[in-house]
Amino acid sequence: MDGSAAGDGRPDPAVSRGRRAVSDALLDLPADAGVVVGVSGGADSLALAVLTAYVGTRRDLRVRAIVVDHGLQAESAQVAQAAADAVRRLGTEADVVRVEVGSAGGPEAAARTARQTALATYADEHGCAAVLLGHTRDDQAETVLLGLARGSGARSLAGMSPRTGLWRRPLLGLTRADTEQVCRAVGASWWDDPHNLDRRYARVRVRLDVLPGLEDALGPGVGASLARTADLLRDDADLLDDLAAAAYEQSARDDGSLDVAELVALPRALRTRVLRAAAIAAGCPATDLTAAHVTDLERLVVRWRGQGGPALPGGITAVRDGAVLAFGRAGTRR
Amino acid sequence: MDGSAAGDGRPDPAVSRGRRAVSDALLDLPADAGVVVGVSGGADSLALAVLTAYVGTRRDLRVRAIVVDHGLQAESAQVAQAAADAVRRLGTEADVVRVEVGSAGGPEAAARTARQTALATYADEHGCAAVLLGHTRDDQAETVLLGLARGSGARSLAGMSPRTGLWRRPLLGLTRADTEQVCRAVGASWWDDPHNLDRRYARVRVRLDVLPGLEDALGPGVGASLARTADLLRDDADLLDDLAAAAYEQSARDDGSLDVAELVALPRALRTRVLRAAAIAAGCPATDLTAAHVTDLERLVVRWRGQGGPALPGGITAVRDGAVLAFGRAGTRR
Repeated sequence: MDGSAAGDGRPDPAVSRGRRAVSDALLDLPADAGVVVGVSGGADSLALAVLTAYVGTRRDLRVRAIVVDHGLQAESAQVAQAAADAVRRLGTEADVVRVEVGSAGGPEAAARTARQTALATYADEHGCAAVLLGHTRDDQAETVLLGLARGSGARSLAGMSPRTGLWRRPLLGLTRADTEQVCRAVGASWWDDPHNLDRRYARVRVRLDVLPGLEDALGPGVGASLARTADLLRDDADLLDDLAAAAYEQSARDDGSLDVAELVALPRALRTRVLRAAAIAAGCPATDLTAAHVTDLERLVVRWRGQGGPALPGGITAVRDGAVLAFGRAGTRR
Repeated sequence: MDGSAAGDGRPDPAVSRGRRAVSDALLDLPADAGVVVGVSGGADSLALAVLTAYVGTRRDLRVRAIVVDHGLQAESAQVAQAAADAVRRLGTEADVVRVEVGSAGGPEAAARTARQTALATYADEHGCAAVLLGHTRDDQAETVLLGLARGSGARSLAGMSPRTGLWRRPLLGLTRADTEQVCRAVGASWWDDPHNLDRRYARVRVRLDVLPGLEDALGPGVGASLARTADLLRDDADLLDDLAAAAYEQSARDDGSLDVAELVALPRALRTRVLRAAAIAAGCPATDLTAAHVTDLERLVVRWRGQGGPALPGGITAVRDGAVLAFGRAGTRR
């Protein structure tokens, strides 16, 4: 239980790497700060709880874990309770919180929304400065491939951020196998969620079929390459989004329409982002607005020969009116 | 032979799409301009020759085709001759040019270099303004996946450009199946290169194993998504490279070292690009310089605690010296 593989007191390499990763992720927190670990019972989040408990003791942080029971399966309460017990056996306080999952955005999105709300509320109630999530490099690689299939550019390939607001993901540099190794080294037994083998989910198909195929074709470094790609593209997307926000401000008129001359003068990477932002501001649901819609909009700017504008999601229309690109709703102009 | 599928005079949809694509790609060329089509004998380049001949006639362009014989296989001269004959039967002038393939950069890179040199020379000798290449959307999707496996950021995912300098790729919006359909519609018979089935090449493994697996997992739109990703990331990479060039100029001192304060002030997307450019300027071979090397360099800038610098490819070293990051060669400082 000392984290050593051989019981010789020298920690397992995966444990060392994990401790360092968690420690680095929490460097900015002052002593006595509180952190919550979101635990599912799987190897990744259980390993994160273990590693955070270790770091917390040395850094005087208050560490606790929360297990969210989504109540979607008959046995979910039992699974959640077992996960909380596993964490408690490792010496960390753990609570189970039962949530009601709605239906907005589909079952996966609804479950995620309910879970995130519960985690944020719990962190707030317990005065915690951060919620730690157990996503690994494998999760990141899967996220990149799913984003690739959407074809919507840098942001959708940028994967999950190691840190946004309350949320921190210290284990993005470790593999899923590393987290299993951490659990074994400390004698924690994890739960293998049968959903992780259910090929009805795109993510599961990517995990079980696509990534192994990619590794066969291109070598075992593919997972690491995908994760590095995500890091690089996240940096790119952050800067480009900032620049686009400034360009949007520059080209938007008071009524929400856009100055075409300003748009024409922009590099394409910014023009497409400004058009996307303006369409969303006009009422297009962001999730339905594709790169193809934005290309249609751009044609009004750079290849306008008097044609009408495209129909956009959410009943939004766009029209070119001389030097101005205006958005409207189902026939009415704004 | 009129490009109609049913012989009813109405062109096949793939032929129409192809003609439009080629016409769009050549819009800027004045009458009597010359274009060269690079032909391998495969369906893609043969279709391109067919489509370009059609557009050329209507636009008064001088169209000719060149078949490069790499001389690497016993039958290569015959294959090249047959390809030239197929083009001539379609009414377009075609020449075969035999090249000597060297060995620099590996067999594939050496063949590409020899081919590009031959095409550019031929275009020059025949007063041609553009060389057209038959790469399709499938080639683009494969290129993106190969770039993904390298994990080196936006530029490596940006695929092939529809146009750089002399080179134009009018068929990036068509699939390989579209080009076969074009050939069938005009009665041109193409050559299936057995190398396209040789799994010793990473590109072949991607084509035969990875892309079909991705489509099974994520749906038939994956090829289009990958190509769209390439387009979006190419725009991003173009802008970021421009911004980084300006930032590099701002932070470089006369001796090639970099001003650390300038680097620290940059957004990460630019800082990493400036560091990469400076390392290449110091003598690192661009192909050997990985994202991991650049991360090591960046640590000297943003997390320097007196540590030494990394060893970089090409025998280049980097050291932090107070407010300056300097590059040197094997022990000697520059």
